[in-house]
Amino acid sequence: MRHEKYMRLAIEQALKGQGETFTNPIVGAVIVKDNVVLGKGYHTHYGAAHAEVQAIDSLTSLEESIQATLYVTLEPCAHTGKTPPCVERIIAGGFKQVVIGQRDPNPIVAGRGVAFLQAAGIEVIENILRDEAYRINLIYNHFHETKLPYVTLKYTSSLDGKIAAKRGVRTNLSGSETWQDVQIEREKYQAILVGSETALVDNPSLTVRNPQGKQGLTRIIIDRSGRLTGKLMLFTDTSQPTWVFTENSNLKQRLTHQHVRLFFEELWTIEQILMVIAQEGIQSVFIEGGAKILHAFINGGYYQQLLIYLTPHLLGSAGVDAIDGAIVQQPNLKLISIEQLGTDFKLQWLPQEKGG
Amino acid sequence: MRHEKYMRLAIEQALKGQGETFTNPIVGAVIVKDNVVLGKGYHTHYGAAHAEVQAIDSLTSLEESIQATLYVTLEPCAHTGKTPPCVERIIAGGFKQVVIGQRDPNPIVAGRGVAFLQAAGIEVIENILRDEAYRINLIYNHFHETKLPYVTLKYTSSLDGKIAAKRGVRTNLSGSETWQDVQIEREKYQAILVGSETALVDNPSLTVRNPQGKQGLTRIIIDRSGRLTGKLMLFTDTSQPTWVFTENSNLKQRLTHQHVRLFFEELWTIEQILMVIAQEGIQSVFIEGGAKILHAFINGGYYQQLLIYLTPHLLGSAGVDAIDGAIVQQPNLKLISIEQLGTDFKLQWLPQEKGG
Repeated sequence: MRHEKYMRLAIEQALKGQGETFTNPIVGAVIVKDNVVLGKGYHTHYGAAHAEVQAIDSLTSLEESIQATLYVTLEPCAHTGKTPPCVERIIAGGFKQVVIGQRDPNPIVAGRGVAFLQAAGIEVIENILRDEAYRINLIYNHFHETKLPYVTLKYTSSLDGKIAAKRGVRTNLSGSETWQDVQIEREKYQAILVGSETALVDNPSLTVRNPQGKQGLTRIIIDRSGRLTGKLMLFTDTSQPTWVFTENSNLKQRLTHQHVRLFFEELWTIEQILMVIAQEGIQSVFIEGGAKILHAFINGGYYQQLLIYLTPHLLGSAGVDAIDGAIVQQPNLKLISIEQLGTDFKLQWLPQEKGG
Repeated sequence: MRHEKYMRLAIEQALKGQGETFTNPIVGAVIVKDNVVLGKGYHTHYGAAHAEVQAIDSLTSLEESIQATLYVTLEPCAHTGKTPPCVERIIAGGFKQVVIGQRDPNPIVAGRGVAFLQAAGIEVIENILRDEAYRINLIYNHFHETKLPYVTLKYTSSLDGKIAAKRGVRTNLSGSETWQDVQIEREKYQAILVGSETALVDNPSLTVRNPQGKQGLTRIIIDRSGRLTGKLMLFTDTSQPTWVFTENSNLKQRLTHQHVRLFFEELWTIEQILMVIAQEGIQSVFIEGGAKILHAFINGGYYQQLLIYLTPHLLGSAGVDAIDGAIVQQPNLKLISIEQLGTDFKLQWLPQEKGG
């Protein structure tokens, strides 16, 4: 119970860094001796000192850490990255015990931090509030565990599941609250992905105010047949990179812009596209349609979250379906939240493992 | 403020009769003198004494009503129906003042009660908490104001607006909580209406446990081309009346059951069907589909409420649309409630008048 209490404080610390540490995880640390909290710290932003070091630096004297316990939400690192390895500072601090929320799934850590501490004679206790510690870094954990990006599918439809009044026409369904909420959602991801139909019909710029990560938000288009033209906003707006996955080798002659990268294969599967995106270091993708793209990702099960915005419209059977194609196997969706946004509302679903 | 306070007590009384007074409205009454509540009453069930009389009968002595104020949610009646006119008892009671929530829209009352009381020298104050008083008898008010039944449209669909995986196949989407909720909803209406496609594919019995009104729940089918057969549950189950609106004069040879009524016209419009239903004394209809019927009622604007049950399924574009047909004019829908029912949820919408 004592360990849980201090780990909860460490998680509270970690959450202060939310949205700022990309592509690093958020991490919090607390230093305790004789039931007194002596130091606290968290990873404030990408490139900054790690939480453990921030906590040690917050002590009033170096002696305080001797025989103390360090609570940290994620396994301390044993490698030199942007900063020196945390385990060295912990060992130098004379800690008696290190309590860890979650082992780091990143292969450059993955148990090496724990082994290093134990080899130095420090007692290590793992998996205290493990689920909570895991959940605060859902994208980071998914990425390192699966080597694929965390995928959120999003669509906005009428009550009867239509995204437009008829094919090839953009129908503005969502109210201003939904529009604002989608902006906020976009900022949580490293990339936004749409299909060529959406790029052509809606001609979106897909920019966000506060792009995550150093390189800014990456805009990704799947354009198998190579229909895109350089006049689209995605190409005339050069503020953020645009990537195009295509099966048409001639597209490179049409899209020669500096901020554009073409990924060509004779045949792209969804899994291959996601693998390439992950290899390029992108941990999370926000997919905004259209209906064929949504179908491909839903049908293949390539998503970790589904966001549906429903608006108070009925478009009838003349409208365009939100999901274009047959669903071969029913997903097992769990409702996580319903939120009213003006006259619209937002539903958050997580696909679950099938039982039995 | 004093009037509102006692009218609220009268509304509380009225609500005790909810679901029991069909086809009468629910009504509550409170008798007050010198700021003391002396009597209370409500209309308990169809055929029972009216609320005003119940309140007067609750007094400990006949003198108490002399110079008292009667608060009643609905205009007292001036006609002899199942019971003698209420205004006579009020006048005989020596009341000084009658405070009314809502004037009775029923043409056999409609101001005559007020006129009768005033002619007897009693002061009448109208429209105290009028909106609340009106709302507790939404169906009754709609029926008498429009001479048409109050229509609720209901459908259950997947998240992407599909009611079945493919045409002609019954797909069971709803969970048990939704199923139970639909039973409760059905009990609020005098009739359930479906199209012939639903009758043939689902073969429902459309019975309810506690039918409203004397004659029980009426089951209504629109079967323009006359496709129904006598083997369907609606005909083999004789517990409640089944009405069929058809444009096929030969159907009468096929459907000869005692509990069946056929309504034949060369051409039925939705409005004509609703007029006939109202003329037969049915104040409220719960419409459960299918997709063509829903389209006809939505497109024509012939509904007062829309209930949508969404289930955690995605059926894709191979599924059957909830609304079969194009919607010519967008309805202006207002969300009244969202309710979670197990893994499903229920949305209650009211169509609003278009602005401007």
